[in-house]
Amino acid sequence: MQRTPLRTLCADLPTATPGSTVRLQGWVHRRRELSAVTFLVVRDRSGLAQVVVREGSVPPEETTVEVVGTATANAQAPGGVEVTDPVITPLTEPAATPPIELWRPTVNVGLPTLLDHAPVTWRHPAQRARWELAAASLRGFRATLDRLGFTEIQTPKFVASATESGANVFEVDYFGRPAYLAQSPQFYKQQLVGVFERVYEVGPVFRAEPHDTVRHLAEYVSLDAELGFIQDHRDVLRVLRDVVAGMTDAVHEHAAGAVALTGAQVPVVPDEIPVLHFRDALALVGAPEDEPDLAPEHERALGEWALETHGSDFVAVEGYPMAKRPFYTHPQPDDDRWSNSFDLLFRGLELVTGGQRLHTPSSYRAAIRARGEDPAAYASYLQAFEHGMPPHGGFAIGLERWTARLTGVANIREVTLFPRDLHRLTP
Amino acid sequence: MQRTPLRTLCADLPTATPGSTVRLQGWVHRRRELSAVTFLVVRDRSGLAQVVVREGSVPPEETTVEVVGTATANAQAPGGVEVTDPVITPLTEPAATPPIELWRPTVNVGLPTLLDHAPVTWRHPAQRARWELAAASLRGFRATLDRLGFTEIQTPKFVASATESGANVFEVDYFGRPAYLAQSPQFYKQQLVGVFERVYEVGPVFRAEPHDTVRHLAEYVSLDAELGFIQDHRDVLRVLRDVVAGMTDAVHEHAAGAVALTGAQVPVVPDEIPVLHFRDALALVGAPEDEPDLAPEHERALGEWALETHGSDFVAVEGYPMAKRPFYTHPQPDDDRWSNSFDLLFRGLELVTGGQRLHTPSSYRAAIRARGEDPAAYASYLQAFEHGMPPHGGFAIGLERWTARLTGVANIREVTLFPRDLHRLTP
Repeated sequence: MQRTPLRTLCADLPTATPGSTVRLQGWVHRRRELSAVTFLVVRDRSGLAQVVVREGSVPPEETTVEVVGTATANAQAPGGVEVTDPVITPLTEPAATPPIELWRPTVNVGLPTLLDHAPVTWRHPAQRARWELAAASLRGFRATLDRLGFTEIQTPKFVASATESGANVFEVDYFGRPAYLAQSPQFYKQQLVGVFERVYEVGPVFRAEPHDTVRHLAEYVSLDAELGFIQDHRDVLRVLRDVVAGMTDAVHEHAAGAVALTGAQVPVVPDEIPVLHFRDALALVGAPEDEPDLAPEHERALGEWALETHGSDFVAVEGYPMAKRPFYTHPQPDDDRWSNSFDLLFRGLELVTGGQRLHTPSSYRAAIRARGEDPAAYASYLQAFEHGMPPHGGFAIGLERWTARLTGVANIREVTLFPRDLHRLTP
Repeated sequence: MQRTPLRTLCADLPTATPGSTVRLQGWVHRRRELSAVTFLVVRDRSGLAQVVVREGSVPPEETTVEVVGTATANAQAPGGVEVTDPVITPLTEPAATPPIELWRPTVNVGLPTLLDHAPVTWRHPAQRARWELAAASLRGFRATLDRLGFTEIQTPKFVASATESGANVFEVDYFGRPAYLAQSPQFYKQQLVGVFERVYEVGPVFRAEPHDTVRHLAEYVSLDAELGFIQDHRDVLRVLRDVVAGMTDAVHEHAAGAVALTGAQVPVVPDEIPVLHFRDALALVGAPEDEPDLAPEHERALGEWALETHGSDFVAVEGYPMAKRPFYTHPQPDDDRWSNSFDLLFRGLELVTGGQRLHTPSSYRAAIRARGEDPAAYASYLQAFEHGMPPHGGFAIGLERWTARLTGVANIREVTLFPRDLHRLTP
């Protein structure tokens, strides 16, 4: 008999040779004490395994343990193999009783409990699976863009002016003077199109949102991409289509178990995403033609239209009124009331905003003056344009919104590891 | 003749069929005007291509252009193929003269010029190559840890107390109350070991460093990993070894051109990194045995020792005195003056700090009290330990320090896209 066999992950126990000695390491997921025997369920990163304990005690739930015992076939056990004759060694002190019963099949607690005890509640397999969808999506995002010749960038989160960052910014004491936290890497990813042509960044962005809603966070993870030498925003939308398809592929490839556990409805991304002009979208939903934006009920109606007409969970609305878009937005060439920008709706909710940007220095100066500002305030940003930029555009996907839509949770906080908002700064 | 052929990247021009029409898009890298002809060098993300212009003018350097012309074999041209009979269409207004001559083979300007004009100076192929090494390293970091069963995490950068973040923290006005920017994801990555066992994060960290040195930044990119169910810090070091090897592999695979352009000395990572105990390291360099830390000259001497004795660019020093390590550090089991932690030296400079952490709740309470603090101040963090944590440890690699050592630059700012420090908040 091997005295200290290599660790066997719970998920691999069914492949262990019956009669061989195995070593499990994990958490006491559940104890079920019967009269003559205790069933111990061990949980590790791969799954669960059953241990049959006939003598001695089992530490309380969530205590970490090492179990050395015999792999034994038992058709009643999960996976057909359990561990018998175990020697159980606690790896820490007996754990305190968890704030929620982690062994129950569903996470059945209110949001405050879920969030206040996040370090523990994320251990619930169904809760953990939500983040596994997020992590797999990140892999798919990067893998797709790597394949398409994009370069990953990491841009500064400290910026010099509130202007650079937009409204609702957080102010920082930066060595005795004010600085601000970036609301997006927008200005930097554009400047770096001038260097690498195609760039992406995954990182935190900061918004001092005074809104206490189920969709807003003070800090979230933004998946940004920007590319040069485009014809117009339709080229951007094509890359976005490939990125979202790559994210769903990665979810299936790397997180199939999490899909099953969460019941996530992973969409099929059509080869071409249906596109409606903003003007036509208003007409379709019966809104007045001078509406400057789509209301939530309009977005829902468009989502239903896309599903019925195109069998698509996605629809892009292009041509949003220039008045509602940021100053760097490229106008629609034949009618500058409209813009070369789009929103991508996923199941009737806005998931991504993207579009073509201005790229000539004179158009930037004019756009900045048009909002009553001095181009000199943007001197650092405008350097890139004065020194030659290509037609370009890009998009940003909010990671938490994406995962929330995949899983259908009511509140974005349910898919955020440690959410930050108007009220919450811990844990 | 095809009227609008697909774009050909400069690097692919040598494979174009001679006589075919090609379409290049890029920047005017250089114009060389001779009496009868102008040579235009176009730069795109893939490289350079030569265009022979016999009539008409060429826009100034850095203007973005589209060139449609005939692929023509010419043994004198780079890659053996050039473009003749071009139609050149500017894609923006004529570019202003760049602050540095981007077409010269080396970046030959002082640091202030390099940094003040970063959006343009990063366009220099030799400068851009430095970041390409960084980007490839990030791919290698993630690919290795994905393969080893790690889960990517994204943890909050807003933290509730300066305690949580350490010394030299940035304070933020968080909806009218103070918050702080995380100096590292340390507390969060540990808590998430309780969920996923093995986690990594790539993201910004913030340090209000009052030091104006060539090695310190106020914001840098930290490559963090943490794993559970370890025996001790040696298990952490083995994972770190694989990660660094994965980073060098990725540099060779994805950034071979950048290695050539920068002259980067990419190390060979030994199968096993040589390890010295801190006590023996002091003796080896002839330092007094009660020295609490290694001085830079000691680190250099150890680097030389590793190279001479083991042929290794790397050496790990383990067992650093507990007094010099953070409170969550695990002591050496047989002598608690020393710790189960290490520094990894790369060419005689500290690159990574890592080690085993405490994991029982009682050891945390004792360690926090020993520094004269109240464990209640750490309640949120300590939840994870009270509810069962495995023996665990991890490490953090500073991306910019890694790239600086690869390229041998004198100042870490030379490999940072938009550095932030005591004095610099733009561009």
